[in-house]
Amino acid sequence: MVLPSRPDLEVVGAFNPGVTRHQDEVILLVRISEAPHKASSSIAAAPFYNAETRRLEIKRWPANEKGPDLSDSRLIVHQGRTWLTSISHLRIARSTDGIHFEVDGLPTFGPDSAYESFGIEDARITHLDGTYWINYTAVSDRGIATGLASTKDFKSFERHGIIFPPPNRDVAIFPEKIGGRYVALHRPMPEGLGHPAIWIATSPDLLSWGDHRLVATARPGNWDDVKIGGGAVPFKVRANRQDAWLAIYHGVTGSPPTYSLGALLLDQHDPSKVIGRSREAILRPETPYEREGFFGSVVFTCGALVEGDLVRIYYGAADGVTAVADLSLDGILSGLA
Amino acid sequence: MVLPSRPDLEVVGAFNPGVTRHQDEVILLVRISEAPHKASSSIAAAPFYNAETRRLEIKRWPANEKGPDLSDSRLIVHQGRTWLTSISHLRIARSTDGIHFEVDGLPTFGPDSAYESFGIEDARITHLDGTYWINYTAVSDRGIATGLASTKDFKSFERHGIIFPPPNRDVAIFPEKIGGRYVALHRPMPEGLGHPAIWIATSPDLLSWGDHRLVATARPGNWDDVKIGGGAVPFKVRANRQDAWLAIYHGVTGSPPTYSLGALLLDQHDPSKVIGRSREAILRPETPYEREGFFGSVVFTCGALVEGDLVRIYYGAADGVTAVADLSLDGILSGLA
Repeated sequence: MVLPSRPDLEVVGAFNPGVTRHQDEVILLVRISEAPHKASSSIAAAPFYNAETRRLEIKRWPANEKGPDLSDSRLIVHQGRTWLTSISHLRIARSTDGIHFEVDGLPTFGPDSAYESFGIEDARITHLDGTYWINYTAVSDRGIATGLASTKDFKSFERHGIIFPPPNRDVAIFPEKIGGRYVALHRPMPEGLGHPAIWIATSPDLLSWGDHRLVATARPGNWDDVKIGGGAVPFKVRANRQDAWLAIYHGVTGSPPTYSLGALLLDQHDPSKVIGRSREAILRPETPYEREGFFGSVVFTCGALVEGDLVRIYYGAADGVTAVADLSLDGILSGLA
Repeated sequence: MVLPSRPDLEVVGAFNPGVTRHQDEVILLVRISEAPHKASSSIAAAPFYNAETRRLEIKRWPANEKGPDLSDSRLIVHQGRTWLTSISHLRIARSTDGIHFEVDGLPTFGPDSAYESFGIEDARITHLDGTYWINYTAVSDRGIATGLASTKDFKSFERHGIIFPPPNRDVAIFPEKIGGRYVALHRPMPEGLGHPAIWIATSPDLLSWGDHRLVATARPGNWDDVKIGGGAVPFKVRANRQDAWLAIYHGVTGSPPTYSLGALLLDQHDPSKVIGRSREAILRPETPYEREGFFGSVVFTCGALVEGDLVRIYYGAADGVTAVADLSLDGILSGLA
């Protein structure tokens, strides 16, 4: 049971967690999405953080044919402006076995600026130089951008601002420097010229990013033919007698869309080079809780833990719940083309 | 007379120049756009740089009702992919009086990678630390991004890769460090959530950029109500007995769009703070060469030279020609609200 942050809100999702080990625990930073209690089906309501009053407020419209467009369960589109039907914050869940978790009763990390007025989503946690670096999606009417925070103890957090301007999400920072630079995958979202794709960037300090290069695009005729984006924090593997980086990513196909997971194998020294890619998805929405929910037919990961041949993927299902899947590393590697 | 770079191309535009002083000359880096010679009105042709063959090639379609969408004179849209009808490179023009220019016969700086397959556009030149830093729009089917190059002599150029991933253009780097950091305006182009707007970022090295913040958005009911973006490299002014930065930017209104110029006055120490903004446009398309051309009703600047009260704005008109306008700095400042 995940408690709401306020009595007038209900929790509609607890999903897309970032994951790491800290001391003797497995720690998740779960995206908790909340929506206003439904007073009536004839009212559309959008929660938002007001950076001036520093409070979460709720905007309401009559839900009739003259009212906003509600065709996407996640959105309220009205007079050319877009609002979200729910607002997310991050909350810690702790476990000693990696399977049974206790979720904190209060938000750990929530909206705190005009860049986060529609919420904070999809944390990835990278343990690096003794600090846990947490990148997250900062959503507002300024766009969908990526923010960075850090902590050493998961008690106090420091914010470092926006590291990738909109439209950009699905950032995953590598857990070590490569060639003397920090490295991250990111997912810009151009339209018209260009399409959402996985890019890479490097940084001298984790705060400023440059040398942007394209890594991978959607593949026509495959399970990832509509769009793709970064997923879990990449981890090092041994493949074909050499070290390489494995990045579990999400791919989208079809309409309505199906979100599945696959893997990219990236060169050890130059991870902009793709040396392998999953022919088929390694995880697809199959169970009822993956196929039906707030936004159905979605498996989406922000993190995995690896031990020997075990790749334990923590993932969000149908934008509603958190699930875990144990995969074989050898199995993932043998499915690369 | 601007010569084409190849005999099978014709120059269709020489516009949107970056400008600087170098030794005793005023130097423009003019965007030269070229299109394939029209063999017939029944053929649509898109020039592009092929990064594998390292050559400019031309793709052709029959221009009939089953063919591509040609409704925008700049674009060829076919089967969900977008091509450009022209391709741009940068070319130096030199002057001793700032008015009469001699344009080089050969390209100075042209497409050289897959990020530039549809051309290089809209240079801004910032003289900083003894080097001329040139940011430009890198256009390709990977998106519209911003690249960086540098030169000390306008003879040899060094490339520094993509500094702002797509969709992002209209970058203008400030000519000095502020608070120990390099600073740039940029213009991300989110859709759906967020709109094209002027943002600011800072950098330790000009190559990696972070701390992204919103500076200004389109203003409903004004000359800049559809979208805005950076223009000339900002310059320091004295206004209301304090130093500040003046940034001449472009604003768009109407449909079909009209591009005009205005000014932002930015705080000296924290240029993310807007302390003044032009109530009315300071330059609008009025003359025949501004109102009619390859893409009409456009004045668009990438640079200005300032001396005392004279603000000499170099600008592109109707995406076709380069023009110059002399404005009074006092006049610009008195029009700020």
